Amino acid sequence: MPRYKLLLEYDGTPFRGWQRQATGPSVQSVLEDALLAATGETLTVVAAGRTDAGVHALGQVAHVDLGRYWPPERLMGALNHHLRPHPVVVLQAARVADDFHARFSATRRRYVYRILNRRTPPALERDRVWHVPVPLLCERMHEAAQCLVGRHDFTSFRSSECQSASPVKTLSLIHAQRVDELIEIRFTARSFLHHQVRNIVGTLKLVGEGKASIDHVRAVLAARDRAAAGPTAPPQGLFLESVAYEG
Amino acid sequence: MPRYKLLLEYDGTPFRGWQRQATGPSVQSVLEDALLAATGETLTVVAAGRTDAGVHALGQVAHVDLGRYWPPERLMGALNHHLRPHPVVVLQAARVADDFHARFSATRRRYVYRILNRRTPPALERDRVWHVPVPLLCERMHEAAQCLVGRHDFTSFRSSECQSASPVKTLSLIHAQRVDELIEIRFTARSFLHHQVRNIVGTLKLVGEGKASIDHVRAVLAARDRAAAGPTAPPQGLFLESVAYEG
Repeated sequence: MPRYKLLLEYDGTPFRGWQRQATGPSVQSVLEDALLAATGETLTVVAAGRTDAGVHALGQVAHVDLGRYWPPERLMGALNHHLRPHPVVVLQAARVADDFHARFSATRRRYVYRILNRRTPPALERDRVWHVPVPLLCERMHEAAQCLVGRHDFTSFRSSECQSASPVKTLSLIHAQRVDELIEIRFTARSFLHHQVRNIVGTLKLVGEGKASIDHVRAVLAARDRAAAGPTAPPQGLFLESVAYEG
Repeated sequence: MPRYKLLLEYDGTPFRGWQRQATGPSVQSVLEDALLAATGETLTVVAAGRTDAGVHALGQVAHVDLGRYWPPERLMGALNHHLRPHPVVVLQAARVADDFHARFSATRRRYVYRILNRRTPPALERDRVWHVPVPLLCERMHEAAQCLVGRHDFTSFRSSECQSASPVKTLSLIHAQRVDELIEIRFTARSFLHHQVRNIVGTLKLVGEGKASIDHVRAVLAARDRAAAGPTAPPQGLFLESVAYEG
């Protein structure tokens, strides 16, 4: 059973998220359908990050075990053929060792959250940004976020549905930057809790519009109580940028 | 009849182009429908550039004469309300002098054409780029384009449906630049012929992939024959970026 690593780009808009659901199409289901069409085999794909409904990926990583050897280039071409017209594309395919695991072998995940900060709604980036019409002070958001960097109990920023064994995670980077009307907030960590990025962004937005102080973020973190944080930012601004592995 | 200038952003994907058509929705028709809903008046909107089907705008400019005075902010809000769910947004509205004309007063138009130059098709930017899978040499394309800058007879790059009185236009800038997988080609001129940008891009693509020499572009220009140029680049890579006026 040769194992393959797949690098994926997708538009999360039409999907129920990564994970196969009975209620509608998911990225996993259209990818497994394409695998069935290409190989004749019913296979299960494992992803580095199980993105939520509406969340996009520029560089999701998944692995799958095939019944027989396929040249990686041919596998990629066959999958991209059968994935059409779904907005899911295999950017790279590679044969990997049997102990490679897209989820458990990952050493770093990088997300970017995009806010369109202008009065009028987006026409072109409608499903690709969170539209926030009130002016946000990006520098304040960046400054406020820095107390979250490092190893902390992120209970306050964790979804009630989170299945992680522990609420303790190590955030290695949060960086908020404005280019004209667009604010991009980058997050890097070995792994994240469910909704962690979107819950942090929801709280940083309160700081950016002056409804919360910079110290408020520190207080929310210390509270270890989901009710202390701001509302969850919507999914369409979130992109899984890349996943890194050893070596 | 107070005149208003409107700055517009739109996603050209669902439209037959700017101009009202019997065959389907156009940007003009949804804007005029929104004006009717907001003001109760049947009005005609005039645009700086009559973009084709599938072409986008980041900064289209239009003007319209209303039957009575509206505070510009209120007009903008009412139009954006009635434009929903169409991907057309009024970014700014301003009262202008009666002799302001969105099309004839324009002194400079700026377009950008975006090529996604990678082997695999786009998932996220599907309707926003021309996907060219063969490697393009962007520097060659930039160099080849420079002979088009200045005042020339652009018959070779003009659509057979072009209604312009003369094929002579002055291109003030063409600049091709690569950022990773994306090639952006910017065009600035007082005005353009129909399909001029897309026909130039179609020819530059042949140069970029090595099918035509740099001198070929000069020869195509000199031929004054549409058959000499490359195929027309597809509409979804083209964006009207901005329109400038005196003062």
